[in-house]
Amino acid sequence: MDGNSIGKAFVLTCFGESHGTLIGAVIDGCPAGLPLKEEDIQPELDKRRPGLTGIGTPRTEEDKVEILSGVFRGYTTGAPLCMVVRNRDVDSTPYEALKSKPRPGHADYPARVRYGGYNDYRGGGRFSGRITATYVMAGAVAKKLLRRFNVEVLAHTIRIGRVSLKKPVSYEEIRRNVYENPVRCADSETAELMRKEILKAAAEGDSVGGIVEGIALNVPAGVGDPIFDSLDADMAKMLFDIPAVKGVEFGAGFKSASMRGSENNDQYVIRGGRVVTLTNNAGGILGGLSTGMPIVVRVAFKPTPSIRKRQRTVNLERMEETVVEVGGRHDPCIVPRAVPVVEACIAITLADHMIRVGVIPRVLK
Amino acid sequence: MDGNSIGKAFVLTCFGESHGTLIGAVIDGCPAGLPLKEEDIQPELDKRRPGLTGIGTPRTEEDKVEILSGVFRGYTTGAPLCMVVRNRDVDSTPYEALKSKPRPGHADYPARVRYGGYNDYRGGGRFSGRITATYVMAGAVAKKLLRRFNVEVLAHTIRIGRVSLKKPVSYEEIRRNVYENPVRCADSETAELMRKEILKAAAEGDSVGGIVEGIALNVPAGVGDPIFDSLDADMAKMLFDIPAVKGVEFGAGFKSASMRGSENNDQYVIRGGRVVTLTNNAGGILGGLSTGMPIVVRVAFKPTPSIRKRQRTVNLERMEETVVEVGGRHDPCIVPRAVPVVEACIAITLADHMIRVGVIPRVLK
Amino acid sequence: MDGNSIGKAFVLTCFGESHGTLIGAVIDGCPAGLPLKEEDIQPELDKRRPGLTGIGTPRTEEDKVEILSGVFRGYTTGAPLCMVVRNRDVDSTPYEALKSKPRPGHADYPARVRYGGYNDYRGGGRFSGRITATYVMAGAVAKKLLRRFNVEVLAHTIRIGRVSLKKPVSYEEIRRNVYENPVRCADSETAELMRKEILKAAAEGDSVGGIVEGIALNVPAGVGDPIFDSLDADMAKMLFDIPAVKGVEFGAGFKSASMRGSENNDQYVIRGGRVVTLTNNAGGILGGLSTGMPIVVRVAFKPTPSIRKRQRTVNLERMEETVVEVGGRHDPCIVPRAVPVVEACIAITLADHMIRVGVIPRVLK
Amino acid sequence: MDGNSIGKAFVLTCFGESHGTLIGAVIDGCPAGLPLKEEDIQPELDKRRPGLTGIGTPRTEEDKVEILSGVFRGYTTGAPLCMVVRNRDVDSTPYEALKSKPRPGHADYPARVRYGGYNDYRGGGRFSGRITATYVMAGAVAKKLLRRFNVEVLAHTIRIGRVSLKKPVSYEEIRRNVYENPVRCADSETAELMRKEILKAAAEGDSVGGIVEGIALNVPAGVGDPIFDSLDADMAKMLFDIPAVKGVEFGAGFKSASMRGSENNDQYVIRGGRVVTLTNNAGGILGGLSTGMPIVVRVAFKPTPSIRKRQRTVNLERMEETVVEVGGRHDPCIVPRAVPVVEACIAITLADHMIRVGVIPRVLK
Repeated sequence: MDGNSIGKAFVLTCFGESHGTLIGAVIDGCPAGLPLKEEDIQPELDKRRPGLTGIGTPRTEEDKVEILSGVFRGYTTGAPLCMVVRNRDVDSTPYEALKSKPRPGHADYPARVRYGGYNDYRGGGRFSGRITATYVMAGAVAKKLLRRFNVEVLAHTIRIGRVSLKKPVSYEEIRRNVYENPVRCADSETAELMRKEILKAAAEGDSVGGIVEGIALNVPAGVGDPIFDSLDADMAKMLFDIPAVKGVEFGAGFKSASMRGSENNDQYVIRGGRVVTLTNNAGGILGGLSTGMPIVVRVAFKPTPSIRKRQRTVNLERMEETVVEVGGRHDPCIVPRAVPVVEACIAITLADHMIRVGVIPRVLK
Repeated sequence: MDGNSIGKAFVLTCFGESHGTLIGAVIDGCPAGLPLKEEDIQPELDKRRPGLTGIGTPRTEEDKVEILSGVFRGYTTGAPLCMVVRNRDVDSTPYEALKSKPRPGHADYPARVRYGGYNDYRGGGRFSGRITATYVMAGAVAKKLLRRFNVEVLAHTIRIGRVSLKKPVSYEEIRRNVYENPVRCADSETAELMRKEILKAAAEGDSVGGIVEGIALNVPAGVGDPIFDSLDADMAKMLFDIPAVKGVEFGAGFKSASMRGSENNDQYVIRGGRVVTLTNNAGGILGGLSTGMPIVVRVAFKPTPSIRKRQRTVNLERMEETVVEVGGRHDPCIVPRAVPVVEACIAITLADHMIRVGVIPRVLK
Repeated sequence: MDGNSIGKAFVLTCFGESHGTLIGAVIDGCPAGLPLKEEDIQPELDKRRPGLTGIGTPRTEEDKVEILSGVFRGYTTGAPLCMVVRNRDVDSTPYEALKSKPRPGHADYPARVRYGGYNDYRGGGRFSGRITATYVMAGAVAKKLLRRFNVEVLAHTIRIGRVSLKKPVSYEEIRRNVYENPVRCADSETAELMRKEILKAAAEGDSVGGIVEGIALNVPAGVGDPIFDSLDADMAKMLFDIPAVKGVEFGAGFKSASMRGSENNDQYVIRGGRVVTLTNNAGGILGGLSTGMPIVVRVAFKPTPSIRKRQRTVNLERMEETVVEVGGRHDPCIVPRAVPVVEACIAITLADHMIRVGVIPRVLK
Repeated sequence: MDGNSIGKAFVLTCFGESHGTLIGAVIDGCPAGLPLKEEDIQPELDKRRPGLTGIGTPRTEEDKVEILSGVFRGYTTGAPLCMVVRNRDVDSTPYEALKSKPRPGHADYPARVRYGGYNDYRGGGRFSGRITATYVMAGAVAKKLLRRFNVEVLAHTIRIGRVSLKKPVSYEEIRRNVYENPVRCADSETAELMRKEILKAAAEGDSVGGIVEGIALNVPAGVGDPIFDSLDADMAKMLFDIPAVKGVEFGAGFKSASMRGSENNDQYVIRGGRVVTLTNNAGGILGGLSTGMPIVVRVAFKPTPSIRKRQRTVNLERMEETVVEVGGRHDPCIVPRAVPVVEACIAITLADHMIRVGVIPRVLK
């Protein structure tokens, strides 16, 4: 395979380019019997929309999902589910100038090498963040399926540039607040600081990165396929498939490297008749298997590479050094729009693995 | 699949348990025509051995590799390559007591749930760090194959507990020094501090974690299969398949979340007729494709969960709370032994992807 | 996976239902740099159309292909290629009556069991022969790719019911004549007898089966991946994926069971500096690898199960015996329309394997 | 992958060469909790042994199976199951002479092209029929698993050269008689004629082919994954992976090509509260899904290519024509030894698919 499919039981194949006709997702392996309509998917897509005026790309992306196959009389049939979003409002002109001048931080240069120059470079083509809308569509299906089994997936912004969320937030605050502010932070004061951090960078023709935390609640213990298809490995793989992700950590993550075993180990107790741990430094995964505790993963995003500031680059046709100032419409920070994408990646991985171990059956009752 | 295979073109399947007959690796897809003998693999296995007296498990693991198939008259044939290491010096007694009392931080509890109690729990069974010896065997083959194409893979310890490597080290220092000290650090002064950090934890019946940095040099630009089989995603997946890994980051990694685009972007210039970047915050990968710059990845390991200190746990048969003190032979820090494993994971991922894009042919000339 | 994808290097995923919105194919792994437009695909689809008036379904299937992704400025980009055909002229009314009465010879009954009754039964849904139009679209791409490497794929009808092709036909006759008559037979006299055989069955409210022979010319020696992905096994797998196929044989096939080794072995000689065999009982494949001789495969199709004649069946809701007379529009013989489908399956399998062994590169020059 | 693995849920990977150290099989995905010991596998391997003196290879193949992993205290653990058979009594001398002179009907020539001459040609290497002993080991596990779910797999010889089984035989006769005579035919009179047919060919330095019929009883309806992983397609794929197979047909098979729909359709009735069909021309599979009726498949084997008779071939090093008389120890008819291999292929395919659809769970109760 050429890398456009992921999963073994709930398999997502995606296609389409940023400035092509459309982008689409095919899910093979969604169990039969799930009630599904376009209204289930649209709200997830809407969460990916640019939020506050002044933050995010001004491109008006009215992404309208269409389900093209796999649903009959309101229920999934067990046949492949194809969903698409048509591309509109596309202006490819600025990309012509960039054709031989790779933008620093973008895939332009290695993509040209990899595909012998045949790749569709308009709007980044297959390498555009826009492709993650296909993850979100598939994620919407996965989330609906998971809810049937009581599993909930959340995500929130915990850092934008130099501003980080310092106070603890409850699941309830995440549920309630995240999509109420343009930066997708569960705390409104921090959200305001984050918003300013983005606007400041934007005003300077620059961009900022950030960190998103994802959480999955009520995943039963024992989900995962070690050795190589361990739950964390597969989740990390899918998260690294989001453009601009440069780091992924579970539970205590990088911090655990500085910890003692006696601090880091999560000790077992019984609460309400269930085996639980007193802490959750493992982030809900041990040995590649879910422990029954919340799955917690943090995802680091680099700053948007497209910036107005002048940067050095190379004219690949003449093989000479030159400079570039990236015009066009670009988010000064993609983190807020990545929040539903992180949710989607977590949900898709969980759906895949819960079907694999048989927790979710092939036909729903 | 049940997760015991990884890769699409250079496919590793592993089998065996910590206290079973043996552990083994089958590689399907190694190109024909690679000179290969046991002496090529043994040194890599030896790098995984416990180093200094007093650091690492006292279990005498004289891992002797045997090649059982796939080599004829000194060359790989293109048929599957099976390599095994027999288990010796195994004492499973301590594990009987732990059978119903899951050790905090280990896979014991979720594994019991996942496999209905049928899993071989002796020495951790399939969940033992010992399984990574199969990665190392496969990695030795991958490294030999990569060297044919001028690609070199390195790794070194950059943190143990609270001690981190502060000074920059050159590739040459890494090549020369890493396997000269028991903690696998390229700087001898830091190495000594790290050694003490481990000994101190050990003396207290405790353990420490750490960070390993892996590097791949001379990977040509354009290697990788976006979207879902991007080079970083596949490398991260394999690294998260090493037990105890809790975080993976490429290039500037989590730090890039706090950076501006203008700082983080790696600008292009021409040096010696080749397109290179002035910095390497991307860690050699953009859009899931290699850029031609060194691939740099950091891997966070949690502290060894097996500690002598008393911890709370649960008797799963009686469903009542209890305590555990983990005896047996355990590394107070697995990081030094993980260094060759990180090398192996990087090498295996690169071999797989370089075959996939055709940079490495199916028959060597 | 749920079985809607096939191939490892040239991967076809298909979606859609007979009476749904559309049917579609996604190819992942088509090399970059292949000139491709809708006009390359349409003629192959047109070959699947009902031929002579009076033979084949009266449903007017004006299948118009649309390429939705993967092509940029007339060339494949290396990104997934999505192609669709919209469904028109659909009348699902007759299927309501059949909902609980499975048609003998159709997938109705096992599909209902497999999908818990959620499957789209209209027009056979996913089990309709219409789905093979997606094979044909993908096959058109594969054929264009193969031609670049001098490989040609042919197919022709050699039996319809009791009428079989008795005289030898040359490749040139196959090329010239097959699509000139409605039964796709290379000999015009036999074609006329076949036509009558079909009309006779149709007149009696009955149907007939037949045999299609497929041929691939100029496949270089050494293509295939034994053990389990042998070229014949993968080709047979794809051919058995055509609805109504009940047998597949290569070269002398079932006849070789009655032969002596001395008769059946194809002896080697040198002709024009190339190693060739005097006979081709192997059908161009030995040990799962192409020999360089023409690949020859024969595919047996059962008679169309949908017939007007009264048949016994069961009302699955009431669990009582009943009868059925299948109305609607049905081919009395699907063999002629299967000819381009057989070509497609052969071409797709060859493209997949030629990329796998590196004979076809990932980027065309 | 390079083709040495098959299956998606019950995945068989095999390794080893005819004249190497050993041959082995790894099963990934065997459910946990199946009682398994070497004594379960050995009888299946023994069925593959040469039967009557004077029929079959005189090579004394005392294939002793060893289980190396995946079983703990008598039960499968859910971890990969590795089983091997060591090679003994190997004389590779005759193969040196054949190195540059490909034997007609063998894989020698295409294998040399495919693997650039690096393949282990001794005894046919990976292309030897001996490799099917790994299918039989895996098949033994699959059969034991299937029996737990009441599924039984049978096979018997129905043709040897010009002698075919003419009288109907019951399942009970197959169970009782097949392994009681050296040709594996359920009828003792026909068996004697078949034996003579083989001896006659052998006496003339020649060989014969034949046909094996495989049957699976009590497979529940609805097993299979259409479109591309249909049950018949996957079973045919695995059967074509047996060396020397040239044809596969289900139910009425090639004969259905001459039939009318009204004859070929299997009409539904209710018997004992179950939906069954009056005939079974479908061979138990419709639309790629099991119907609940017996699965019936016939497999055509070509005559053994290794014969003493002089044949034309080519010296590939000098590129000149020459002749060859194949010495060494060769079966004049491999069909009897293929009977347990056909059983194995059917059982493996069914185990894989029954796990896939969830009929067999991941942990047995």
